[in-house]
Amino acid sequence: MRTGGTRRDFLKAVGVAGGAGVLYETMGALGLAPTPAQAAVTDFAAPTAADFTLTGRSAKKVVILGAGIAGLATAYELGKAGYRCQILEAKDRPGGRNWTVRGGTELRDLDGQYQKARFSEGQYMNAGPGRVAQSMVTLDYCRELGVALETFVNQNADAYIFNENAGPMSGRPTRWRTAKTDVYGYVSELLSKATDRGALDAELSADDKERLLAFLRSFGAIGNKSQGFAYTGSDRRGYSVEPGAADEAGTVLGPAPSMTEVLASAYGQRFSFELGYDQAMMMLQPVGGMDRIAYALAKAVGTPRISYNSEVRRITDLPDGVEVTYRDAHGRERVERADFCVAALPPHVLAKIPHNLGTAVTSALAYPVPNSVGKIGLEYKSRWWEERDRIYGGITPTDMDLDNIWYPSYGFHGKRGTVIGYYNTGAHAQVYSQLSPAERTARAVAQGVKIHGDVYRTELATSFSVAWHRTPYIEGGWVSWPSRTSGEYDLLNRPAGRVYFAGDWLSYFIAWQAGAFDSARKVVTDLHQRVMTS
Amino acid sequence: MRTGGTRRDFLKAVGVAGGAGVLYETMGALGLAPTPAQAAVTDFAAPTAADFTLTGRSAKKVVILGAGIAGLATAYELGKAGYRCQILEAKDRPGGRNWTVRGGTELRDLDGQYQKARFSEGQYMNAGPGRVAQSMVTLDYCRELGVALETFVNQNADAYIFNENAGPMSGRPTRWRTAKTDVYGYVSELLSKATDRGALDAELSADDKERLLAFLRSFGAIGNKSQGFAYTGSDRRGYSVEPGAADEAGTVLGPAPSMTEVLASAYGQRFSFELGYDQAMMMLQPVGGMDRIAYALAKAVGTPRISYNSEVRRITDLPDGVEVTYRDAHGRERVERADFCVAALPPHVLAKIPHNLGTAVTSALAYPVPNSVGKIGLEYKSRWWEERDRIYGGITPTDMDLDNIWYPSYGFHGKRGTVIGYYNTGAHAQVYSQLSPAERTARAVAQGVKIHGDVYRTELATSFSVAWHRTPYIEGGWVSWPSRTSGEYDLLNRPAGRVYFAGDWLSYFIAWQAGAFDSARKVVTDLHQRVMTS
Repeated sequence: MRTGGTRRDFLKAVGVAGGAGVLYETMGALGLAPTPAQAAVTDFAAPTAADFTLTGRSAKKVVILGAGIAGLATAYELGKAGYRCQILEAKDRPGGRNWTVRGGTELRDLDGQYQKARFSEGQYMNAGPGRVAQSMVTLDYCRELGVALETFVNQNADAYIFNENAGPMSGRPTRWRTAKTDVYGYVSELLSKATDRGALDAELSADDKERLLAFLRSFGAIGNKSQGFAYTGSDRRGYSVEPGAADEAGTVLGPAPSMTEVLASAYGQRFSFELGYDQAMMMLQPVGGMDRIAYALAKAVGTPRISYNSEVRRITDLPDGVEVTYRDAHGRERVERADFCVAALPPHVLAKIPHNLGTAVTSALAYPVPNSVGKIGLEYKSRWWEERDRIYGGITPTDMDLDNIWYPSYGFHGKRGTVIGYYNTGAHAQVYSQLSPAERTARAVAQGVKIHGDVYRTELATSFSVAWHRTPYIEGGWVSWPSRTSGEYDLLNRPAGRVYFAGDWLSYFIAWQAGAFDSARKVVTDLHQRVMTS
Repeated sequence: MRTGGTRRDFLKAVGVAGGAGVLYETMGALGLAPTPAQAAVTDFAAPTAADFTLTGRSAKKVVILGAGIAGLATAYELGKAGYRCQILEAKDRPGGRNWTVRGGTELRDLDGQYQKARFSEGQYMNAGPGRVAQSMVTLDYCRELGVALETFVNQNADAYIFNENAGPMSGRPTRWRTAKTDVYGYVSELLSKATDRGALDAELSADDKERLLAFLRSFGAIGNKSQGFAYTGSDRRGYSVEPGAADEAGTVLGPAPSMTEVLASAYGQRFSFELGYDQAMMMLQPVGGMDRIAYALAKAVGTPRISYNSEVRRITDLPDGVEVTYRDAHGRERVERADFCVAALPPHVLAKIPHNLGTAVTSALAYPVPNSVGKIGLEYKSRWWEERDRIYGGITPTDMDLDNIWYPSYGFHGKRGTVIGYYNTGAHAQVYSQLSPAERTARAVAQGVKIHGDVYRTELATSFSVAWHRTPYIEGGWVSWPSRTSGEYDLLNRPAGRVYFAGDWLSYFIAWQAGAFDSARKVVTDLHQRVMTS
C-alpha cells in the first residue's frame, strides 16, 4: 500500500470515496488484510460529485490533450466529480497506441505509405498493447466498464524457440518444452555432481544437500547417484510418436542434444522472460480486441466531450486558466479555454507544440527517447499452427529481425486466424519500417518459412503492418528515459502552471496501459486536491 | 507417426478415408511434412459408408456398453460407415466421468448420500476431467463437432503454493512467482559458484562455462562474479508496493528467505508439474463445461441410438453374435442382440457383470486397481480471488488433504465464481468421502481459510462434492495397472469372441479423455478390419 501519502490523507479529510476505494474499504470492514498486489492497485479514490456539492465549490473545466488511455482515464475520473472535460484528439478514434486493426482500418504513415486492412470479419490485430498482466490496474477498469476478458497466451510449451546463430542447434525450431527439459536436465545434472563432490560444502548443510539433490532429481528428470545424476532425455521433451491405445506407449522425442550443444543454443536465455513481473502468465486480453477498453472509456466519457480530428497547435498558460489552440476537423483554427489542461500526448510530440511553459519544460519534453517498434498482422486462410503444429496461442522468439511470432489467443479452431508475424523493436523495427508494406510482408514471411515451412507462405491471405515510430501523432512505440533522476522526469510530473502532464511515460510501467492509468490517477488526484484546497 | 502398422496399410488398401484423415492427406498434398505431434494424433482413418457400398457388404449391428467418451466415440466413428449402433447407458446422461455439475444436478452416492446442486445460473463445476492438452486428440473431436474452446489456466504465477509442513515457510502462502524466483536464484548462485571454482571442469569446456554462467545470471537474476554470484531477491518475486506513476518506483517484496529456508520449503518439488507432457500450458476447456463434448458426441450419434437408465446385467458371446441383457428404465429385463459388442465400462464395473467370456477375462477385468478421487465445487458470492488476490485462474497446490485448489478459468470479472475446493486422490479422497457432504464442505473451507483468510468462509454461497469411488456405475476416478506386461492388459486389448473392450484404461493416457478416444479409435479400426475381411 502506498501508505500515509499526503494525497490519501487529503482525500480522506475531504470525504472523497468511491470506485475501487469502496471495494478496499468494504474489504477492511470484512476484516480482510489486503494482500500487497491488491493494496497497491486500489489505493486510489476517485473524486465524486459530493466533493463539490458538499463544499459549495463549482466544478472546473479541464481541457485534455489526447484521447489515449491517459487522456481518456483522466476525463473519466474527473467526470465522476462533475468536472467539465473536453478532449482534443488529433486522430479520428480514441485509444492512441491502443489500436485494434480490423478490415477497413486505414493508415497513412509519416512517409506517405498507405494501407487499408483487408482482414476478414472477426479477424483483428492489436497493433499496440496486446496483453494485460493480472496485477495491473487496467483490469480494474475492465471490471468497472464491463469489458469482457479472455486469456492472453504469453507462454506456450509447444511454441518454438528459433535461432539462426546458436551453434549446432541453428535453424532447428525447438519447442519450449523440449528446450526447458534439456536445459533443466543438464543444469540439474551439473549441480547434483558439484553438490555430491562436496564443492558446495561451504554453502550447504547436510540437510540442505539432501533437499537440493531431491529437488534436482525431480526438476531435471535426471538419474540418481548410481547413474551419475545423468540427464539422458525425458518424456517432458515431447514425443515423436504420441502415446495411444493398447500397445502404443509412445516414442519419446530424442535423443537429446549434448550439454555443449544445449549451452550453445542459447535457448536458456529465453527462460527469464516468463519470470518477469509483467510477463508471467496468467495474462488477459479484452474479448474482441484491445480497443474495447478505449471505446468503453470513450463511451463513459461521452461523445460530446471528445473532439476528434483536432490537432493541438499551441498551449498557453494564463494566470486564470489555459488556452489551447487547435485545428479542427474542417481545418479551422479554434481555441479551447479551460481552468486547467492535462497534456496526455507523447513527450516527443508535445515537444514540437509551441507553448509558454518555459524552456525547462521544452527541453524536458525532448529528453526521453522514443523507441522504434513494429508489428505485422498476417491473416491466414487456415489455422495451420493449431491443426498441424498443435500450437494454441503463445510466442515463438527468434534471433531473426522479426524478433517474435505471436499465435492468436482468440478464435481457436475458427476458419481463419491472424498471426503477429513480427513484433520487433530498435534496429529490427527500423529495418522493416524502411520497406514498403508489401516488402515487409515478404521479408517476414520468408523468415517465418524457416520455422513453419511453406504453409507460412501458401496459406497467407492478407497482411497489415504498423511502424509506430513512423505513425502520425505517435512517432514511437514508447519512450526510454536516459535518466529519471536528472530532473526532467520530476519536472514533468509536476504541473507547469495550470498544465499537467500524463502518460505511461510518466510512470514506472512504461509501454503498459497500466502506466497510463496510474499516471492519469496521479494527475487527477493532484489536480482535484488543488481545486479542493483553493 | 505410427508407421507401417497393419491397420493403416489395411485401411489404405480398402480405400477407407475421412474425418481427420482427410486433413492429413490434404496436408500431404500441400507438401507439408507433418510434425510429430500432428502425425501422431491424426493417424486414424474413420470408416466410411463407401467401405460397405463399394464392397457389397452390409453394415453390421454393434451394441455398445456405456455412453462415456469411449462408448460415444465408438458409436460416432462406426456410425460414419453406417454401422447400426445401440448404446446402453446406466445413467440418465451421456459422458460418464465427463460430468459437468450445474444448478439442479443430482447425485445419490453408493452410501446413500443425496445432493442436489444449487449453483447459480452460469456457474458449474467439471466434476471429472477439467482440462485438455494441446496435443490431445480430444481437440480434434472438438473441432469436428464444433465444440467451442477457451483457455484452461493450469499454471498461474500469482496462485499460491501452501505447505503446512515445510520448515520455516510452513503456513505461509507463497505465490508461484516468488517461489520460483527464490529457488532459481539460489540454484543459479550455487551452480555459478561451483562452476567458477572449477568443480565441474571435467564436464565443461571454457566455452561451456562461459555460456552456463551467462545463462545462470539471467535465469537466477543473480549478481556477477565480483558479487559472489549472490542471489539477494529480485522484482520477479513481486512487489509489496506496486510500481506506479511519478516517484512510485515500487517496493520489491522482500527480503527473500535464506537458502536453507527455501530448500526446506519444498516449493521446488512443485515445479516439475508444469513440465509434464500432459500438464504444460497451453491447455483448453470447452466453453460452458466439459460435458459439451459428451453432448456433442451424443447429438452426433443420435438420440434413438442411446438407451439411458439401462443397466447391463449379462453379456453372452454367441457363435453368430452377442446378446446383452439389461434392465431398462422401467425396471424390465430386456435383451439387445447385435453382431458385435463394445464394452466401454470401467473394468471393475464390468468385472461384476456376469458373462461367458471365460475366467481369464474375469480375472483380467478385476486386475486394474480403481483410484479414489474427490472434487468439491465451492460457489462464492463474489470473485474475491480476482478482486483481492489478483488471481485469474490457476492452481494452488498444498500439502493439506485438500491437495489442490483450482480457481475458475471462466467468467472472469463475473458476479460469482466457482472454485474447486479440493481435487484429491488416494487416502485424501477417502478422508472426504467418509464425511457427509456438509462435513466435506466444512473441512475444505476450514483448510482454505488458512490460505485465503475468512473470505473463504464468509463469501461461500453453496457447494457440491463428488467422490468418484463412491459414485454408482463409476466406482473410481481412474484405474492403475499394477503391471501392463503380465498379460491382463494385452488380453483385454483383444476381443473376447465378438466382445471388444474400450476405455482410457486400455491406453497410455489413463485418466484423460484422449485415452478413451484413442482406445475407441483402436477398437473401431480393429472391428472394422474384421468386418471388411470376413
